[in-house]
Amino acid sequence: MAANGNAADPEGTNFFNAGALAGLDASKVTITKAKTLKPIPAVEDLGMGNTMTDHMMVATFHPARGWSAPEIKPYGPLELDPASSCFQYCPNVFEGMKAYLDPEGHPRLFRPDLNMARMRQSAERVALPPFDPAELLTLIKRLVTLEQRWIPTTPGCALYIRPTLIGTRPALGVSASDHALLYVILSPMGPYFPTGPRAISLLGVRAPARGTGAWKLGLNYAPGFQAQRAAAGRGYQQVLWLEKAGAGLGGMKVTEAGAMNFFVVVRRDDGGVDVVTPPLDGTVLPGVTRASCLALLRAPAPFAPGLPKLHAHERALSVADLVRYAEAGRLLEAFGVGTAVVVVPVGRIGYEEEGAGEGEGGRKVSDIVLPEGVGVARALWEALVEIQEGRREWEGWSVRCA
Amino acid sequence: MAANGNAADPEGTNFFNAGALAGLDASKVTITKAKTLKPIPAVEDLGMGNTMTDHMMVATFHPARGWSAPEIKPYGPLELDPASSCFQYCPNVFEGMKAYLDPEGHPRLFRPDLNMARMRQSAERVALPPFDPAELLTLIKRLVTLEQRWIPTTPGCALYIRPTLIGTRPALGVSASDHALLYVILSPMGPYFPTGPRAISLLGVRAPARGTGAWKLGLNYAPGFQAQRAAAGRGYQQVLWLEKAGAGLGGMKVTEAGAMNFFVVVRRDDGGVDVVTPPLDGTVLPGVTRASCLALLRAPAPFAPGLPKLHAHERALSVADLVRYAEAGRLLEAFGVGTAVVVVPVGRIGYEEEGAGEGEGGRKVSDIVLPEGVGVARALWEALVEIQEGRREWEGWSVRCA
Repeated sequence: MAANGNAADPEGTNFFNAGALAGLDASKVTITKAKTLKPIPAVEDLGMGNTMTDHMMVATFHPARGWSAPEIKPYGPLELDPASSCFQYCPNVFEGMKAYLDPEGHPRLFRPDLNMARMRQSAERVALPPFDPAELLTLIKRLVTLEQRWIPTTPGCALYIRPTLIGTRPALGVSASDHALLYVILSPMGPYFPTGPRAISLLGVRAPARGTGAWKLGLNYAPGFQAQRAAAGRGYQQVLWLEKAGAGLGGMKVTEAGAMNFFVVVRRDDGGVDVVTPPLDGTVLPGVTRASCLALLRAPAPFAPGLPKLHAHERALSVADLVRYAEAGRLLEAFGVGTAVVVVPVGRIGYEEEGAGEGEGGRKVSDIVLPEGVGVARALWEALVEIQEGRREWEGWSVRCA
Repeated sequence: MAANGNAADPEGTNFFNAGALAGLDASKVTITKAKTLKPIPAVEDLGMGNTMTDHMMVATFHPARGWSAPEIKPYGPLELDPASSCFQYCPNVFEGMKAYLDPEGHPRLFRPDLNMARMRQSAERVALPPFDPAELLTLIKRLVTLEQRWIPTTPGCALYIRPTLIGTRPALGVSASDHALLYVILSPMGPYFPTGPRAISLLGVRAPARGTGAWKLGLNYAPGFQAQRAAAGRGYQQVLWLEKAGAGLGGMKVTEAGAMNFFVVVRRDDGGVDVVTPPLDGTVLPGVTRASCLALLRAPAPFAPGLPKLHAHERALSVADLVRYAEAGRLLEAFGVGTAVVVVPVGRIGYEEEGAGEGEGGRKVSDIVLPEGVGVARALWEALVEIQEGRREWEGWSVRCA
C-alpha cells in the first residue's frame, strides 16, 4: 500500500509531491529476532512502563528517499545525532494503546483506528512527515503477535503499546524536521497507580497554557511536571488541571486529571443521574477511552445492569460547580479515564480557596471528599475491560491482531 | 565546586537532599581527542547549524549518583533508550551562545552568565535536575578553547554554541525525568539567513499558545513549524508571531519574529525617535540580545555616532499600531534580534486584514513595506559585533575563554 501514503495525504504534498518518495510499507518489513529472550517479571512487579519487551519496530523517513523498509528487531538504544530536532525543538508525538488476549488466546487491540488517525493528525500539527496509518497498524499487529507471550493475563492488566514519531533532522536551524524516526515499543503493565484499584486523590492546579492540548504531542507533558511534583509533595497522587477563564472558583474550569480525561457523576433534582465531562474545546485531549465511555453511556440499551438512568453530557465544569454539587450532596462520583488506567475512581479533590494559585503557594487547600458512588466508574471499567479482552462484543471495537 | 551544586540550589532539594549526590564538577573532566580532524568548510558553505565541530561535551545525571564526571570527546551520536523522556514527554531545554576571536586571537564568549542562569531556570521549569551554572560555563570554555580553529574570522560570523539538557528517564510513566543528559555541541555559522544582510520579510500569524514562552524550552518551537512552513509557501521568510488579546488588528499583539525578539523604530511628533519592543509579559523570551540592545539604547552616552536621539521602550505593540505608524510615514525601521542573527532588518510585514486568521486561510494579506531606515538596526549590529569580537569594551560583556 506504499502508493497510498500519498493518496491518503493531500496536505502532505510538501513531502511527497516529487512522487518518488517511498510511503510507509508494512509488506517490506524485515524481522530479526532476539537471540535470547528476557524473563517476564511477575505482574505485581511491573509498574507502568518500566519493563520493555524483547523487540521493537523501527522505520526512518529521509527527505530524499521517503520511508525506509520497516524493521522489527531486538529492543535496544536509538543512535541519534545530538543536533537532532527531537532533542532541540521537540517535534515529537506518541500514542498510547493496549493489547489484550481474548478467551481463545488471540491478541487483540482496542479501536486502533482511532489511535492511528490521531497520530497522523499529531504528526501534521508539528510538521512531521506523513505516513499511511493502515500500514502502521499492520506493523503494530505484527509486533504484538510476535510478542504475544508478554501480554499479561491478570484481569485489568495488558500490554501497553507506545507508537512514537520523532523529528531527527540533524541541524540546528529552527525549522520543521524533514527527517523522522517512527518506532513502536511495548511494555507489560501492572496496575497504573501503586494504590491499585483504590480511589486516587487530585490537587487542582492551574494548567500550563496548552494551545496544542487537543493533539497528542510529547511537548504537552513537560510543562506540567513541576506542578505534578508539587502536588505529590502536598499528599495528592495527581493534579486536576484547571484553566483560568474568569474570576474566582467559578472561573477555574476543569480540563483533565493528570494525563487522563475527567468525569463526574451528579444527581439531578428529578432523580436522574448526569455524567459530565468537559467538552473538546481545544485544550482537552480527544481521548479514545473518553469517547468510548461517552458511547457506552449514550447507548440506547443500558451498557450495564443495575445502574440508575444515566444522562451523558459534554459541558464545562468549574471548581465552583464541584463545590456546589458536593455541598448539596449531589456529587456522587468522580473518575479519570485513559488508555493506561482505563477508569480510576477519585476519592478526594483539593482546591485552593481563592482559585488563583498554582497549588504551590502554601495557600489554604480545601478538600472535596467523594462518597463510594453509585457504581458508574466501576461499571464502565468492567464493560471496557470485557470488550477489550474480547469477552464481550461491542461495535467491532476489539480488533484481532492475527 | 561540586559541593556548591547543592548550596546554590535550594529548590533542587528533591534531587540533592540525600547529600550524597555528586554535583556537576568541571575539574573532573576527561578529554579524549578525535583521531582525525574534519576539514573546515568555507564560511559561505556553512549555513546555520549544519556543520558540527570535532568534539562535544557530555555529562549524565543519575538519580542515585548525581552528575557523572564530564567528558569532552569526539562528536558522535547519542545512544538512548527509546522510552527516554526526551522523546516522549519533551523535558528538553537548550541555550544559544556564540564564541568569537578577539584581535589577539583569544576565544571569547558574550555575556555567558546570562545564558547559564536562564538555562538553570529552564531546567527547573520542566523539573530536570539542577546543575551549577559556573561549572557548565567552565566546561564550555574548555570545549571552545579546544575547538578554537573552528571559530570563523569573517566579520559577523561566529562559532555557535548549543548547550542542551534532556530528560533521559527510561520509562513510560508520565512524570518528571530523574535521569538527564547534559551536552554541548558547536557549529560554525555563516550568515543566518540565505539572503545575507539584506532585509527579511515576515508574515504575521497567530502564535500557538505559549504558557512557557518566557523559558527557553525545546517544546516552545515545534508548534510553530506548521505556520512557519505556510508562511514560506506564501513568500515570507519568517513569521511574526501575533497573540490575540482582543478584537480586530488592535487586538493582535506582536510577540516575536520567528525565533527572534522584535523591535520597531518610530518617529515621534516631537522629532525624537522611539525604539519599541514588546514587554516580557510571560509570552516573550527574555533574550540576551534583546536585553543587550535595550542596554545599549538606554546608555547615558550614545552607543554610536550619527544617530538621532533614541528613546527605548518596552511596551505592547499591535498590528493596528504598525499599520497606523506606517500610514503616517512614522515607521522608520523594524528588526529582529537574537544570538544567531545578532540584528537583522525587516523589509516587509504581511498581515491579514481581519487579523483573526492563521496566515493559511487564503484571506487577503496586506503588506507593510519598510523604508531604508535611519540606521538603528545597523548601528546595533555593528556595536554588538564589535563588543562580541573583543574590539570594543562594554561593561565586561565579552568574556575570554582562556
